[in-house]
Formats: sequence, structure tokens, C-alpha cells
Amino acid sequence: MKLASLKDGRDGRLVVVDRNLQRAVEVPDIAKTMQQALDNWEAMRPALEQVAARIDGHPGAFDLDTAKLAAPLPRAYQWVDGSAYVNHVELVRKARGAEMPQNFWTDPLMYQGCSDGMLGCNDDVPIESEDWGIDFEAELAVITDDTPMGVSEQGAAAHIKLITLVNDVSLRMLIPGELGKGFGFLQSKPATSFAPVVCTLDELGDAWRDGRVHLPLCTDYNGERFGAPEAGPDMTFSFPRLVSHAAKSRHLCAGTIVGSGTVSNEDRSRGSSCLAERRMLEIIEHGAAKTPFMRFGDRVRIEMKDKDGVSIFGAIDQTIVRYEPQS
Amino acid sequence: MKLASLKDGRDGRLVVVDRNLQRAVEVPDIAKTMQQALDNWEAMRPALEQVAARIDGHPGAFDLDTAKLAAPLPRAYQWVDGSAYVNHVELVRKARGAEMPQNFWTDPLMYQGCSDGMLGCNDDVPIESEDWGIDFEAELAVITDDTPMGVSEQGAAAHIKLITLVNDVSLRMLIPGELGKGFGFLQSKPATSFAPVVCTLDELGDAWRDGRVHLPLCTDYNGERFGAPEAGPDMTFSFPRLVSHAAKSRHLCAGTIVGSGTVSNEDRSRGSSCLAERRMLEIIEHGAAKTPFMRFGDRVRIEMKDKDGVSIFGAIDQTIVRYEPQS
Repeated sequence: MKLASLKDGRDGRLVVVDRNLQRAVEVPDIAKTMQQALDNWEAMRPALEQVAARIDGHPGAFDLDTAKLAAPLPRAYQWVDGSAYVNHVELVRKARGAEMPQNFWTDPLMYQGCSDGMLGCNDDVPIESEDWGIDFEAELAVITDDTPMGVSEQGAAAHIKLITLVNDVSLRMLIPGELGKGFGFLQSKPATSFAPVVCTLDELGDAWRDGRVHLPLCTDYNGERFGAPEAGPDMTFSFPRLVSHAAKSRHLCAGTIVGSGTVSNEDRSRGSSCLAERRMLEIIEHGAAKTPFMRFGDRVRIEMKDKDGVSIFGAIDQTIVRYEPQS
Repeated sequence: MKLASLKDGRDGRLVVVDRNLQRAVEVPDIAKTMQQALDNWEAMRPALEQVAARIDGHPGAFDLDTAKLAAPLPRAYQWVDGSAYVNHVELVRKARGAEMPQNFWTDPLMYQGCSDGMLGCNDDVPIESEDWGIDFEAELAVITDDTPMGVSEQGAAAHIKLITLVNDVSLRMLIPGELGKGFGFLQSKPATSFAPVVCTLDELGDAWRDGRVHLPLCTDYNGERFGAPEAGPDMTFSFPRLVSHAAKSRHLCAGTIVGSGTVSNEDRSRGSSCLAERRMLEIIEHGAAKTPFMRFGDRVRIEMKDKDGVSIFGAIDQTIVRYEPQS
């Protein structure tokens, strides 16, 4: 099943979307919003699946226009983002001549993100200054139901209900100062963007195994292929492990979004999922980065296709624009 | 005006509370939840104030039982916590022999907290292990309406709509490892607890000035006074400054909660607002900390009274209890 949120007020309007992302049906009699569906997932899932099974020929079906979609959860109660592709972390350290602590291979890195305002798949990304080092980060993310504190990795698997793609926009020039202060990311992480739809795990077929997605994640930058790393093999920590990590000392409420971090392969021929990684490779190879960060007008497209070439989540396809602050 | 949320489902049920915290009135015809009121604050505030003005004698008024109160926002879309009492930060550094960077006096420290499950004023605080170094942190926090990205300190003041008290429970033994990884707090910050009511700023009278609250914040620990530092004089960054900091690169949605950090005075005779600060003072004075962290059964009470001795927000009064994780 594929679900999305039409732009409407603060929380959007839940729709069920067909597998080919062509047609959609509103379901106000089942749940008005994605959050409502997640709040009562076990009760609502069967009714939503009934709609999903008969979108073709449904009297209420309409053509889906992704520009009219909000983020699946336009405002969410929790967004935490792991950094599960540890080879990427190691590379970043190597580029600045630092060694990565050995426990990074066994203890997930994860930060608490801001979740109060998510961007839709075609929304412009408003940023005040190009000097902030604007970058994209192509990632996968899962959405949980209510997940109890202290849940094990094994137990966490059953709480993963939906999966989607994320563009975790980052402001690279603000990161060193912010991390140097010791309290993690805040200003360096503006609003996060989401793919058009979220899917139940069965939509991935056998590409979902070991708590990972075994398909390439494709990023195009200004119309050219930038990277297509495989999301499965180098994901050091599975999604259930990331959920368990997030829940160590607190319950996670329904609708918690848990990200994978930038998808990355040790095989560098696959390309990268963020400018920073390419810049690090340039530093290691040539002594200096030559790929600049994003400028206003630059465009990124992030998409994942199944073995038959069908877009699973639809594409994040968005442009960085200048934001003029008011006083 | 004082508002609270009765425990009811995921988001509670909004009530208007009288100044003495004795009587309350439900207001389902105005707004069902605190979040709904904040989503439409300018429209709803007058109606809520009309109720507040006539609680005495209101046919629907009932006796307020704080044990029946949830956190004002039982799940919120954003919780960011500053560390605005820089003398406290300096002390922590001094105790471990480190110098504090000079820009800590000019650039606020702030972390993104988890907001998906807040605890009510009398809720037990469930923690899995005493070995995690359980501590309380007595703080003030403001709640904003929709606040635009890039808002100035001056502009931010108008977006502060409500104020309350917070117990920012911290797991001190998990902090060094987590901050060492560079991504900030996650497991070391379990659910945050809130005072019974939130107040509009006029409830503070002339104690609210310069974007600060000029009253002592009292913490009792296991029935004994632990500290009563003045919240005003040593707050290096005002609340508007903290809101402006949080909004540098993103909009803040209505219901964003912005904390002050542990209230602390350079005058150490006022006592402290967390165990860690007392332990740091013990280390500096005696070479070692003697005050242990909290154990199961330990109780903390946090309250702020006005010049006439009236409790402004009611008391956070809660006990740490053992949590048994399920698999």
C-alpha cells in the first residue's frame, strides 16, 4: 500500500495512492490525516488496504499531481536520523585526517532532528544564504507506530510500519561551529523534505530483508546522475537496530520517523548521495574539494526504482531558493 | 490566563484554570486541545480569556486535581532547549579542568529535544537503570506561535505566547559518550516533564521584563530545599534571543517549546537547579563529588511563586521509578 498527504492546512489530507503513482483516492471516512492513521494503525490498515486494492475504477479516484502533495507527515512529533552507513562517516573523518573511533562500527550515531515543518517532494527549499554550505543528503526513512522504551532490535522490527525517502538538507558551513559546541545539530539542519508517498514494507517485496532495502538510491543533481549507491550492503545498522537505539531511554510515539543517514557504498564507483562525500573524495584524491555546495536555483532529484524500473516512492525533485527573512 | 491539559487520549483536553490553581473549566466549544488553541491563537485567545475571567461561579467549573493533568502539550512538534545560564556551563567546564570558549557568552548553546511524549507534573519518571546517572534540571520554557525563519530577537518577542516550568530529566552517565560522538543528546535525554499549567506572560506582571522572568525558581529534593536561584539576572540569553536562535534556518510551528536550560546563579548561596551543578561545586571545593545522582524513589519538586507567595504554574512533583523493558 502507498499513502500520501495532499496539501491542506497544517496536517494535509490523507490519500491512498496506486502502485504506479498515477491515481489517488481520498479516505476521510477512514482517517483524515496520516497521523490519524498511524495513531490507530492496526485498526485502520485493513480499511486503507481495501481502498488500495480497488483504486482502479474507484469512483472517487483522481489523477495524482505530486506538486500538490505535502510531506507525508507535514508536521511530525519526532524525527531522528541515524548515520548508518559507517563507511561514509569514516571517509569524512579520513578527509580531515582524523581517525574514527572503533565503536562507531557498533554504536549507532543518531541525532534528534526538527520535525515541526517538513517539506513536500516538489517544494522549494528556502535558505537565507549560499554561504551556509547548502547540501542535499539522500536517505531512506521508516515510520513507526507506538514503540515501547527499551525495545530490542528484534522487537523493533514489528514497529516499522512505513518507509519512504528523505532529503536531509544540511548546511555544511554551519556544522563545524555547531558540533564544536557539543550540543549537536540545530541551525545546520533546516527543514527536511520527503518523497511523494510512504509505502508499507510489502511494497518492497524481497528487496526488504535484514531490516534493510536492497535497491539503489538514485540522486540526480541539476539533471545529471550524481550517484546510485546500493542502500543494502553497506548499511552497518539495520532499521530495527536504529529504532531500538532511538527507544533506549524513551517511548517513541506513533509517527516517529527514523532516518538511515546518507546512503553510501565502499565501492565509490556508485557515486555519492551528498555533495560533502564527493568533496571528501576530492580532498583525498586531489588535496582539495572542487565540487561547490549548492547555489540558489540548483536542483536535486532523489528516487528509488524497483527491479522492474517502477518508482517506488516517487521522486523528491526540488530546487534551492533564496529566503528573505523578515524582521 | 492559565491553561492546562487534562489527561485524555494522546493530546489531552484543554482546560482554563483560575489564578489560584483551584478550579478549572473545560472549553470544548473553543478548542479541544492545547495544540488547537495554539494553532489559532489570535482567534481563540479572546474566547479563552472570557472563560478565564469568570471561572468563579462558572456552572462547569470543577476542582482541579493536578494528578489528572497531562503535560500542557502531551506530544509537541518541537522542543528545543537552550543553556542560557552561561555561568552554569562555565562551572561544568571548570570542574573538568577545561576552559569555556569565549563565544559561549555570545552564541547560545541549544539542543533539539524529543517532543513526542511529555510527562505531566505528577507523573512518575520511568528509567531503566540507576547507573545512567539520573538528574533533574529545573528550567523555564516558553511556547511560541508560528514564528518565521530568520526572525530577529526583537521580532521573536511577539511570538512568545505562553510560559511554564520544565524538568529536563538528564542521564548524566550517558552524556559523555553521546556528546563525544558529536551528534548531541539523544539517549541521554529521556522524556521531559512539565508544570501543571502554562500562563500568558501577563500573569507574571512586572516579573517578566527584558525577556526574562525575575523570580526565584525553587527546587526541593526529597522534601528539602535544594536551590532557589533567581531566574532573571544570570540568564545570559533572553527568551526572545533563544527563539531567534532556534529560528535562524527554519520556521518554528505553533506550539514550539523553547527552554532556558538549568537556572543557575553566580551567587552559589542560592543553591542549584540540578544535581550535576552541586556535584561540580563539590569537585571544585573538595576534589570529589559527594552528592549521588537520583535513585528509584527519589522525588523532586519544582515550583515558582510570585511576590505574594502564589504558585504561578503549580508544582512539578514527581518520583523516579524503575522501568522494566519488554523485549
